[in-house]
Amino acid sequence: MSEERLDRLRDLLTAHDVGALVLSRSSDLRYLVGATPPGCLVITPDGPPVHVGAVHGDVCSLIPAGARVAVDPRMPADELLALQERLGPGTPLVSAAPLLAPLRIRKSAEEIELMERAAIAADRALTAARAFTWSGSTEREVARRLHTLLLDSGHDEVTFVTVAAGENSADPHHRPAGRVINPGDAVLVNVGGRCGGYCSDTARMFAVAEPPEDFEAMYSVVLAAQTAACEAVRPGVAAAEIDTIARDVIIESGYGAFIAHRTGHGIGLDQYEPPYLTPEEDTILDAGMTMSIEPGIYLPELYGARIEDVVVCTDIGARRLNQTPRLLDVVDL
Amino acid sequence: MSEERLDRLRDLLTAHDVGALVLSRSSDLRYLVGATPPGCLVITPDGPPVHVGAVHGDVCSLIPAGARVAVDPRMPADELLALQERLGPGTPLVSAAPLLAPLRIRKSAEEIELMERAAIAADRALTAARAFTWSGSTEREVARRLHTLLLDSGHDEVTFVTVAAGENSADPHHRPAGRVINPGDAVLVNVGGRCGGYCSDTARMFAVAEPPEDFEAMYSVVLAAQTAACEAVRPGVAAAEIDTIARDVIIESGYGAFIAHRTGHGIGLDQYEPPYLTPEEDTILDAGMTMSIEPGIYLPELYGARIEDVVVCTDIGARRLNQTPRLLDVVDL
Repeated sequence: MSEERLDRLRDLLTAHDVGALVLSRSSDLRYLVGATPPGCLVITPDGPPVHVGAVHGDVCSLIPAGARVAVDPRMPADELLALQERLGPGTPLVSAAPLLAPLRIRKSAEEIELMERAAIAADRALTAARAFTWSGSTEREVARRLHTLLLDSGHDEVTFVTVAAGENSADPHHRPAGRVINPGDAVLVNVGGRCGGYCSDTARMFAVAEPPEDFEAMYSVVLAAQTAACEAVRPGVAAAEIDTIARDVIIESGYGAFIAHRTGHGIGLDQYEPPYLTPEEDTILDAGMTMSIEPGIYLPELYGARIEDVVVCTDIGARRLNQTPRLLDVVDL
Repeated sequence: MSEERLDRLRDLLTAHDVGALVLSRSSDLRYLVGATPPGCLVITPDGPPVHVGAVHGDVCSLIPAGARVAVDPRMPADELLALQERLGPGTPLVSAAPLLAPLRIRKSAEEIELMERAAIAADRALTAARAFTWSGSTEREVARRLHTLLLDSGHDEVTFVTVAAGENSADPHHRPAGRVINPGDAVLVNVGGRCGGYCSDTARMFAVAEPPEDFEAMYSVVLAAQTAACEAVRPGVAAAEIDTIARDVIIESGYGAFIAHRTGHGIGLDQYEPPYLTPEEDTILDAGMTMSIEPGIYLPELYGARIEDVVVCTDIGARRLNQTPRLLDVVDL
């Protein structure tokens, strides 16, 4: 249990007029306790946190009558519904997301060090992947090799490996399958893992032997968008503004119809966490916030391109935790 | 979208008097759609399923007035609370767990084939691990090698690798760390991964050079409990009864105070799913149900032991999907 984090959390409970916070087995619990034992943790503004074995069981006796109760935003619905039934309609339940986000959104030096370690491990794997024989391999085979490289390069665990070749790269949610990679394919590679609990998330494009027709022009737009968004990160800028900056580069180049997702997302103990780089996000960036910046363009049935780095907002601007070059990597030459 | 699964689900909606089911990005969505796109899927007894981008947005217009609404048991609390607020207090929300469990709990031949493929991949990795040099390696190093072996042996992804040496094996939730493995240590290894979306989950004990003092007697109790529980699996037996059978073997041998968890859990697309082998579970086993059987004994500060296999309930009894021998493996001889 981190006493400093707990103290900050208690202040937030009081500020949000919350009488009890119920955390389930989530990254919030890991942030506070360093582990995620079964059951849940009940935290009140006074008194020690209490760990109970099951949400629907003993939690109710710990909650002050009439208190506003905040629940872990990741608590599964079946636990939440059981808790609601036990507490009855007189006890209002609210999401603890607005309360927990400020607690976790600015990373400490120790947290950033772990994120940098994870980013460097991803960089090493992507650099080593340049030496693969890509032509003739399937997406799944390349993914397998990347998986091993990610572990060898220092990740404690691998969260995901995406390898999407040719037309599959136009699907931002593609999962590696039996598609054979051929000369002339663009291949989107996106990898993620954890070091000491903290996530990496990096995407690069590889062109096999030579880039497909007209690919480089499109790629240079993605690179310009990603660069512009990275360089705009600094304290005081709205998260939504970073999203707009990347979108505008793409829209002005005529590819606006082929944006398929937000520009990025906060990252830390969770793969996806605040601040989200979307038009709706109202967070103002501040030093210590860590986020992915990953604009993409996806031309259906043809190809797609995404470039992704994790950056940390510092007093003087963005520091990119990934160092892998972002110029299009032509492999199998 | 599997039409056959959808038809069965619609019948269940009608039988449970549910006007709409809202699925979030969970294994339930994967089961029905084969993928987990962002947003959620609204399914009603009539009409086609509708995919919407955000729970709090367009879902409400799809839900018949006054209908009982079932929600994905794994929907995160923040989505559920937003949905509740939009629907208002007049629309009762219930967990879809009782509705979805019967849909997924009996696996088809195709599903069992994928689970067997995953189990065999885990077996191969555990068999290859016998050739490791264990003494002098850290838990983390052994975990890393197992990770690679799990992928090489046919898993699409690795879900977890637990390596707990000596006194760490007495903690059922231990995560591999820097503890160096020495001669005379018992080492608990538990691995899991996925093939085609379906999970493996297997645990074996390794003794380095020689078993620790009095370990073998305790181990033989775990083996007897696991064997008895496996052999009791057949249609018509209560899941709770399987739990009792394993517990009774351990209790009768005098280790009852050192049981730390349930005897097992259902497994499939999820690592943990019904039926749970606990005293409270009221499911009656039937052909096609797949579950882990994993009794353990944990002696604090000394050592622990767990043996785990995945079994499928068939008409004539349990079929063990894992084939790795369960006799104590003495390595580094």
